[in-house]
Amino acid sequence: MSKEDIGITVSKKEDFSEWYTQIVLKAKLADYAPVKGFIVLRPDGYSIWESLRNTFDKKFANNGIRNGFLPILIPESLLGKEQKHFEGFNPEVFWVTHSGENEVGDRLALRPTSETLAYTMYSKWIQSWRDLPLKMNFWNSALRAEIKGTKPFLRTSEFLWQEGHTVHSTQEEAEEEVKKILEIYKKTVEEELAIPVIVGMKSEKEKFVGAVYTTTMESIMPDGKALQMGTSHFLGQNFSKPFEVKFADKDNVEHFAWQTSWGVSWRLIGAMIMTHGDDQGLVLPPKIAPMQVVIVPIYKNDEGKDKVLPKVEEIRKILELKEIRVHVDDRNELSPGYKFNDWELKGVPIRIEIGPKDIEKQNVVIAKRYNREKSSLGFTEIEKISTILDEIQTDMLKIAREQAKANTIDISDYTEFKSKIENGGFFSAPWCGKSECEEKIKEETGADIRVIPFDSENTNEKCMYCHEQSISIPIFARGY
Amino acid sequence: MSKEDIGITVSKKEDFSEWYTQIVLKAKLADYAPVKGFIVLRPDGYSIWESLRNTFDKKFANNGIRNGFLPILIPESLLGKEQKHFEGFNPEVFWVTHSGENEVGDRLALRPTSETLAYTMYSKWIQSWRDLPLKMNFWNSALRAEIKGTKPFLRTSEFLWQEGHTVHSTQEEAEEEVKKILEIYKKTVEEELAIPVIVGMKSEKEKFVGAVYTTTMESIMPDGKALQMGTSHFLGQNFSKPFEVKFADKDNVEHFAWQTSWGVSWRLIGAMIMTHGDDQGLVLPPKIAPMQVVIVPIYKNDEGKDKVLPKVEEIRKILELKEIRVHVDDRNELSPGYKFNDWELKGVPIRIEIGPKDIEKQNVVIAKRYNREKSSLGFTEIEKISTILDEIQTDMLKIAREQAKANTIDISDYTEFKSKIENGGFFSAPWCGKSECEEKIKEETGADIRVIPFDSENTNEKCMYCHEQSISIPIFARGY
Repeated sequence: MSKEDIGITVSKKEDFSEWYTQIVLKAKLADYAPVKGFIVLRPDGYSIWESLRNTFDKKFANNGIRNGFLPILIPESLLGKEQKHFEGFNPEVFWVTHSGENEVGDRLALRPTSETLAYTMYSKWIQSWRDLPLKMNFWNSALRAEIKGTKPFLRTSEFLWQEGHTVHSTQEEAEEEVKKILEIYKKTVEEELAIPVIVGMKSEKEKFVGAVYTTTMESIMPDGKALQMGTSHFLGQNFSKPFEVKFADKDNVEHFAWQTSWGVSWRLIGAMIMTHGDDQGLVLPPKIAPMQVVIVPIYKNDEGKDKVLPKVEEIRKILELKEIRVHVDDRNELSPGYKFNDWELKGVPIRIEIGPKDIEKQNVVIAKRYNREKSSLGFTEIEKISTILDEIQTDMLKIAREQAKANTIDISDYTEFKSKIENGGFFSAPWCGKSECEEKIKEETGADIRVIPFDSENTNEKCMYCHEQSISIPIFARGY
Repeated sequence: MSKEDIGITVSKKEDFSEWYTQIVLKAKLADYAPVKGFIVLRPDGYSIWESLRNTFDKKFANNGIRNGFLPILIPESLLGKEQKHFEGFNPEVFWVTHSGENEVGDRLALRPTSETLAYTMYSKWIQSWRDLPLKMNFWNSALRAEIKGTKPFLRTSEFLWQEGHTVHSTQEEAEEEVKKILEIYKKTVEEELAIPVIVGMKSEKEKFVGAVYTTTMESIMPDGKALQMGTSHFLGQNFSKPFEVKFADKDNVEHFAWQTSWGVSWRLIGAMIMTHGDDQGLVLPPKIAPMQVVIVPIYKNDEGKDKVLPKVEEIRKILELKEIRVHVDDRNELSPGYKFNDWELKGVPIRIEIGPKDIEKQNVVIAKRYNREKSSLGFTEIEKISTILDEIQTDMLKIAREQAKANTIDISDYTEFKSKIENGGFFSAPWCGKSECEEKIKEETGADIRVIPFDSENTNEKCMYCHEQSISIPIFARGY
């Protein structure tokens, strides 16, 4: 293969979309499957997903949520029980009509989401207040036919995600749960993936079909487009009534329960690639990097090999004792330069170089992936790598925050908005609360209301579109 | 609910099938889904699966195997590329024909297994000897339409499993891998689930469609039926040729690669229920029990509560420090007797009872689930629970081995075999190696060759059926 085939051949600035696809494929995170719209995850891509899953699992468990399994097939009759919900998903559903040579009776949908199936079960399992709250989570894949072009992690017809479904005896408790989950999402995405998010409400138009309201976390990507990073829905009794999720209270009176549902998907991996990657390839935050440190021994014609290799082993052991995920690249047939490029493409946070000269000087060379800075570290200081990894993690979030801030603009003039939206970005703009204005803005500029931030103050302004009294300051943007 | 609704109402001996189903449902491991043939896993059932997954993941990783993700839909044309394989699965396949209102072109199969999809990808990813061995594993669900009645964990149209797919440059290395995996399977099932297995070969008739040969581990269940617990297949070049999984060797000559595939499913959970359960309900081996110890505080009308509860908390903390999964049952409205039955039904390995009298005597009462023995343990000895859990685990395997041994019979007379097979069991019987005899035995008795044990010696006997020279001593049994 030529150098061109191996490395990234376009710059992030010039052709963001092509740059993104090249990173996914060339860093071997994922590949296209034989069916259009579907992808396969290779080990490094799946490992990042496993790392996120483990973090979420711990946090969910601390919050009393337990995992379960739901089948992938949902009968059409069940899916149609909550009408709005059904209509929302209907055009995207894959339908099973046959098993072997036989027609199945009621057509079977490949799960686009599991509310209808989960709540059919919940209605059997819940009898009294003693059975509440019921808080379950499901790690599975969902299927929604994508007609636009495939974009790995961002737009695929099958995607990995978790979907949580909780049932409560009071509205207050359910609403509290919606918030708690969004808080877990925000903390995890910021701390693990080093991506800052804005949390708030979706507008009526953009909420989940079937929900009373939807809370969301949104991020701005370096190309100026917004990405929905996860949502947490308050379902009220919209599903508990048609699905008869009822409980007898302490006084033995039956009530419909209050419900929530929430999910994040592998799209978070896409966000991470876009936020941190550069022209050399992927840049991984240390916490989720399948490999955190790679050691490249350097020698020519075996000269100094006998001194270098034992030191490499020694360093590897020190790092493994500190529970750092480390790899030694001892491939014989490849030059150090090739190896450097290879690991930079794959985004390994720290590269350690060590050759005969370093042995003499009693130090190693450290190259940080995210800022490409090199420095040296004494043999006695190797344990510091742990701290350096933490510092990288913190600094990556700081840099991403600055990027996001630079891409966020306060605006109140619609003409100015229309010209600036062409370059992308988050636009904080006053809004009257009417769907008509929201729809007109979408039609004329392609921008949605992404989120109405919890912390935005409505300082008594005029709607950017109709100049009537504003009721909130949402963030408008074009989205993925 | 009446006591009958809550507890197991039939005995294991009298109605094994009904007893099994009641345990699954009443211990809340699983429940029937709205589509016939499909089940849902509740938290305790899924937790056992997660525990197995974690153990396998560690062992696979130590063996250089990494996880990935494959989509659930496989085009019909791809599935048909290896003809025998396709014919084997065809009657069981669920077919997607529509997405939304549109017909999909090539029909899409819901994965019955992923050989065809994985190897399509592998043929893109593998170019040279440097890319080998390629060893990947996939935790997913597979779908095979079951026409016989549903049996949770044992016979369902969708099941959770792992499927491993490896590629090697030599036949020897691939065959070595087949063995290594079977060894991992055996060790894990015996050590984690306390179920003894017999390892060996499948006959030509019973091997995986498309494999050169299949190795298997089989267990005998208490009702005398055999259960296939996991299989590891040597695929030779049967798939690498049609799927063009090729590599350039060091001398730059292209070769077809050598492949293996292997899997275990949630059927292991079914085996565990059957092997260890009793008339009071589930009996869980400590290693995979979601909850290992339950503490039931005992007092009447709050008398002694102020002394009992602080001690309970103290014990809980000691156990948690030892990383024991412990739960305190402080439900107010229920009697101790009810609680005892409840946790016995759910199979928790150790129950600790503690009341005012125990406080005086400075000890707790310990009830072991598997043999229902009670003993007392001094307050200063609480840490010993760790050891007791280990002893329970070991003893459960020992007892299961004895059960299995009592169910295994050496036989050489076909008339005797025909009468004894009615009561079930494993029958070691000499066989000439011909499929005709195997098929006749199946027709006349319903018994298959389950496994030809690796360690069986062919002591120059006559085939049980045709009286010609035997070539091996397989185990015949009726199976699940």
